[in-house]
Amino acid sequence: MLGKTRWIIAEGYIPQGGPHADDPTLRSHETACVLNAGHQPAALSIMVYFADREPAGPYQLEVPARRTLHLRFDELDDPEPVPRETDYSTVIESSQPVVVQHTRLDARLGSLALLSTLAYGEDR
Amino acid sequence: MLGKTRWIIAEGYIPQGGPHADDPTLRSHETACVLNAGHQPAALSIMVYFADREPAGPYQLEVPARRTLHLRFDELDDPEPVPRETDYSTVIESSQPVVVQHTRLDARLGSLALLSTLAYGEDR
Amino acid sequence: MLGKTRWIIAEGYIPQGGPHADDPTLRSHETACVLNAGHQPAALSIMVYFADREPAGPYQLEVPARRTLHLRFDELDDPEPVPRETDYSTVIESSQPVVVQHTRLDARLGSLALLSTLAYGEDR
Amino acid sequence: MLGKTRWIIAEGYIPQGGPHADDPTLRSHETACVLNAGHQPAALSIMVYFADREPAGPYQLEVPARRTLHLRFDELDDPEPVPRETDYSTVIESSQPVVVQHTRLDARLGSLALLSTLAYGEDR
Repeated sequence: MLGKTRWIIAEGYIPQGGPHADDPTLRSHETACVLNAGHQPAALSIMVYFADREPAGPYQLEVPARRTLHLRFDELDDPEPVPRETDYSTVIESSQPVVVQHTRLDARLGSLALLSTLAYGEDR
Repeated sequence: MLGKTRWIIAEGYIPQGGPHADDPTLRSHETACVLNAGHQPAALSIMVYFADREPAGPYQLEVPARRTLHLRFDELDDPEPVPRETDYSTVIESSQPVVVQHTRLDARLGSLALLSTLAYGEDR
Repeated sequence: MLGKTRWIIAEGYIPQGGPHADDPTLRSHETACVLNAGHQPAALSIMVYFADREPAGPYQLEVPARRTLHLRFDELDDPEPVPRETDYSTVIESSQPVVVQHTRLDARLGSLALLSTLAYGEDR
Repeated sequence: MLGKTRWIIAEGYIPQGGPHADDPTLRSHETACVLNAGHQPAALSIMVYFADREPAGPYQLEVPARRTLHLRFDELDDPEPVPRETDYSTVIESSQPVVVQHTRLDARLGSLALLSTLAYGEDR
């Protein structure tokens, strides 16, 4: 199988500010790391859920066959950017089985803090 | 499906003190991030278990349809607050399938440390 | 169900030293947080696996009904202590369904780093 | 069972540099911690996937019966090293059931940050 076709990341929060805010590598960010180990491209459709407004999306992306995509939420902008300092959650639906892991780098205070977890996977 | 109706977080500990104790964003805290991606409101009933006393709860909360709730344990107070510097675990039962992720921010020493994990989900 | 009867933590490493080494709360340590949400006491039998020697254990512990145990690996001593600065893994077998989450605090350099994950659960 | 025979780590990134770069214990690194709690040696075949090139591998390793292997990705070199500062994902196939947990230490800025998660397991 090599994965599932729907993945849910319940946590989501992109911190704002700090001394590395102009450095794309070190500034606070979140990623959804998506592995497509199969032999067909995986078409992703991503919805972002909030506490107090309608969901944003779908964001459409493709992960080529036998490739990984470390998707940065702070680089999404179509149909709209994901706001910083805002609670959110994510649902990723894929045309092919994939595996998703969620990571945050928090650099607000200068030093680094990290979190990561396997997302919740199920088949549609 | 979009989730499960019972989620268990075996780890739980809210650190006390530190230089950010008066800042709700940066002070040490724990969250249970709950996504309800479905089309019905999810009624949550939460029990908090301790090492040496009877459980606290139920705490009653609702996550509206198509919304996320980043529940902070340090803001629970009905029927009672969750004490700091105390080992605990959490069981969340939901009337609708949801997904739960657990996160801690530890700011006791001023700089930040983070942990996060998908909770353990099962259907009742 | 409220859990599984066998849990595996593949990661294990207790760092040594640092400025908080004499403070049980802040010194580097690892925990296996075990929730027994059921109505019977859970008898735990724990084996610790190493890279280059036979496993240690069984360590025998009990989690009372409706209680959590945040087990610190640096406090185990029967049949033998778990050495610091040594790679290990853990298998926890329980007489009752429980849920296990693994956490490390690394304070070697003075500031804090945290990791945590749900363990791998299966039924015996 | 004591595990699964295929494990996927979707996140992968080995940071570069920092004041501990010459210290194997404290320099930034990633590990796949593999427990083989069974009574037969487990033969591992590991493929590493990238964003923009063909996968590397297979890397062939063995975990003896009743032993753990905390595999460091920065020590792999056959058939080729895993590059630093590069997004990757990992698929581990095992001849015997094992359990895999993924950990990163990020020491770029001197202080330590940690992340860890259970990998995604399935049977082949």
